Amino acid sequence: MKHITSRDNPRYKEMRQLASSAQARKKAGKTILDGVHLCDAYFDHISAKAIMIVSESGMRMSEVVPLVARAEDRGSEVICLPDALYAALSQVENGVPVALLIDTPVCAVPDGLHDTVVLLDGVQDPGNLGSILRSAAAAEIQHVICGQGTVAAWSPKVLRAGMGAHFALNIYEGLELSAITDKLQMPLCATSSHTETTIYAANLARPVAWLFGHEGSGVSAELMQRADLTVTIPQSPKIESMNVAASAAVCFFEQRRQLLA
Amino acid sequence: MKHITSRDNPRYKEMRQLASSAQARKKAGKTILDGVHLCDAYFDHISAKAIMIVSESGMRMSEVVPLVARAEDRGSEVICLPDALYAALSQVENGVPVALLIDTPVCAVPDGLHDTVVLLDGVQDPGNLGSILRSAAAAEIQHVICGQGTVAAWSPKVLRAGMGAHFALNIYEGLELSAITDKLQMPLCATSSHTETTIYAANLARPVAWLFGHEGSGVSAELMQRADLTVTIPQSPKIESMNVAASAAVCFFEQRRQLLA
Repeated sequence: MKHITSRDNPRYKEMRQLASSAQARKKAGKTILDGVHLCDAYFDHISAKAIMIVSESGMRMSEVVPLVARAEDRGSEVICLPDALYAALSQVENGVPVALLIDTPVCAVPDGLHDTVVLLDGVQDPGNLGSILRSAAAAEIQHVICGQGTVAAWSPKVLRAGMGAHFALNIYEGLELSAITDKLQMPLCATSSHTETTIYAANLARPVAWLFGHEGSGVSAELMQRADLTVTIPQSPKIESMNVAASAAVCFFEQRRQLLA
Repeated sequence: MKHITSRDNPRYKEMRQLASSAQARKKAGKTILDGVHLCDAYFDHISAKAIMIVSESGMRMSEVVPLVARAEDRGSEVICLPDALYAALSQVENGVPVALLIDTPVCAVPDGLHDTVVLLDGVQDPGNLGSILRSAAAAEIQHVICGQGTVAAWSPKVLRAGMGAHFALNIYEGLELSAITDKLQMPLCATSSHTETTIYAANLARPVAWLFGHEGSGVSAELMQRADLTVTIPQSPKIESMNVAASAAVCFFEQRRQLLA
């Protein structure tokens, strides 16, 4: 175990940068998993090395001790920080003070996609993206493709909202969605209020490429034109629309119902 | 129209307090609706008076002008603030600078509840509560009862996430849920991973009292014991659970599917 005690330590400075700056994370190809649950999920699913960061108080916490042992068993470096230095690093108030510094996993889109896939066109809110990833993984969907305008999937906020779902998925980022849609071996399906076909009437008992868009403006017109199938979640006329993560969950689990039936 | 130009104006000070403090809103029984969409939704659904607050730049914006006219037609007071004073009031970055100061609507729970109702036991995240309200209204559910530990439904953050759904619902707040469950004329239904009954197999083509809980710890043990029906959303064994707002949406729309069938 390594102890860092000075704010001026270059490794500590690097950690602070990674914790606070999306640009620094992108440049370094690294991200931070905050809290016991995400650290455990990482160890469960990923064998790559990682650096564990723990506060001095954390070292004595019953939920952290086995995690530190797990890191050491894997040959991962463990860095212990004074509480004040750890607190300046963490974005979580009153969280358990343990984190992992990891290389951001990167996936290349396979040439032919045959299984259900989710395409996200400009989803902005980290909580929404995390919730969509969690629902996709819960519905046993394996592939999520984030278009260029979508928030960074491996940011600490999205990771927290995803609650470990990231590690059950193949997440592809920063892609031009219009280039992907040509490669799909299945119908591109978008939700729309301008169609009569409900999700209950549509044939979803097959692989589908689900397309969801920006919280305010929805899917871009260009991508919408490429949709093979538009479906609607039958809603009260009093309400304009649902939250994008709620809509996605309803669609994924209607598909699951049809697949299980 | 009234112009306020000084930060020391007592009415401006009151607005700032209401904008920034949940306690001040609770004490005054008032809240703030931020942005064009919520103001419009209020005018569409609620006839009570409200005070409109607009920035000087806002007064010249094409989406604000008709809203100001609408407020004046209703005899509502309109207060114009210099941009800097308005900005200090708003929690929305780059939003359209118009807001309504309203009396927080209060509903008393009717003695016998016969229609589907949603009970929320300690939902903490404003985005989740807003999303649940939006999904409930979209599924034509009319009643949402927020237990004592649930975040304030009429807070600006929940209002923004609700996107106007508040005005299509009867929202009851600050209640002891265990006292409500005795009055219900329908099964109390909770989601659980410890049951074999899926939402698809359960009979949901009838009024149901849906029970959802805290993001981390779920529904309290005491309330869980009162559930007449526990159902599960069939999920991948790799995933522990879904986001509470996503789960609620899936349940509401499976019920809607069964009701429409």
